[in-house]
Amino acid sequence: MGRWEPNARGRLEQAALELYRERGFEQTTAAQIAQRAGLTERTFFRHYADKREVLFAGAHLLEEAFVDALSHTPKTAAPIDAMASVLETISAVFLERHEFSRQRQAVIVANAELRERELIKLASLSKALAATFRSRGVSDPAASLTAEAGIAVFKIGFERWVDEDGDRQLADFLRESLAELKVVAAGR
Amino acid sequence: MGRWEPNARGRLEQAALELYRERGFEQTTAAQIAQRAGLTERTFFRHYADKREVLFAGAHLLEEAFVDALSHTPKTAAPIDAMASVLETISAVFLERHEFSRQRQAVIVANAELRERELIKLASLSKALAATFRSRGVSDPAASLTAEAGIAVFKIGFERWVDEDGDRQLADFLRESLAELKVVAAGR
Repeated sequence: MGRWEPNARGRLEQAALELYRERGFEQTTAAQIAQRAGLTERTFFRHYADKREVLFAGAHLLEEAFVDALSHTPKTAAPIDAMASVLETISAVFLERHEFSRQRQAVIVANAELRERELIKLASLSKALAATFRSRGVSDPAASLTAEAGIAVFKIGFERWVDEDGDRQLADFLRESLAELKVVAAGR
Repeated sequence: MGRWEPNARGRLEQAALELYRERGFEQTTAAQIAQRAGLTERTFFRHYADKREVLFAGAHLLEEAFVDALSHTPKTAAPIDAMASVLETISAVFLERHEFSRQRQAVIVANAELRERELIKLASLSKALAATFRSRGVSDPAASLTAEAGIAVFKIGFERWVDEDGDRQLADFLRESLAELKVVAAGR
């Protein structure tokens, strides 16, 4: 192991996003990211397996946070209310992450491979939530439908949040998106 | 162009599904599929670009059918009712396809790359439906949420249909899945 580099991960993340936006994801190398961050390539690979992982390193933690939040809602809650509570909890993860999320989204939208990876991440989230609902006694198709609907609400609320410049929090967009889903499903 | 082969496409499709299930998708070649179908490799490539396309050749037509069905619902219908009508229309496409769909699903579930391709297909369907809703004057997030919810209903109803041996049609499963989504969204 090399010497300790203060906030190496944050510096690599920021450098990667800058380069992905300037040159495109395909055209950027790990060596260039390390150089921009003032670190060695060796340090890059100590933190990330490859340049794609800079964008998806948080996926596993996000999935854990979703499942954990669902596990902590009362079992007596209706599945959609449990989902609403999960979305509130998850919003806190992104409190200081608006600028990062916005930059990351721009990189992902610009690249087909990354868009596909993002879809797979969301599908995995949905599957994990459905399994958690089932383990709490919600039967299918309700378990799967609540999970799919919840992730759709998250995806659409999130996209609207990163598109906006204002001070509104992710939680506001997720609440709005969930309310709209309820209106839609009620046929209004 | 070679000589005309009666039902070459259907024979290749059936041979491919047999081999994918016997040997696995990865271990099967286009030459083996052609041989099993009693056709030449040249004939295979006249019908399909590669072995994956045997499973996804219908994706483009399915998307067209979804968009076309939505375009033919009355603009005065609530989006979720338009979606219900689309799902009824789409069910007809699968009337004689239960056995094929069941075999295809087994192949897809067994292979990570194919599962990802299937997710991308569904995401593309959802995007096309959302755009069609917007072109009909439904604003976002309602347009995107109805499309996402509709595709979730399709996905889950479809999976339940291929899992079942009985005589019930896809339309029954889609109706059931949509009804359950409404129950879930209403918080019951």
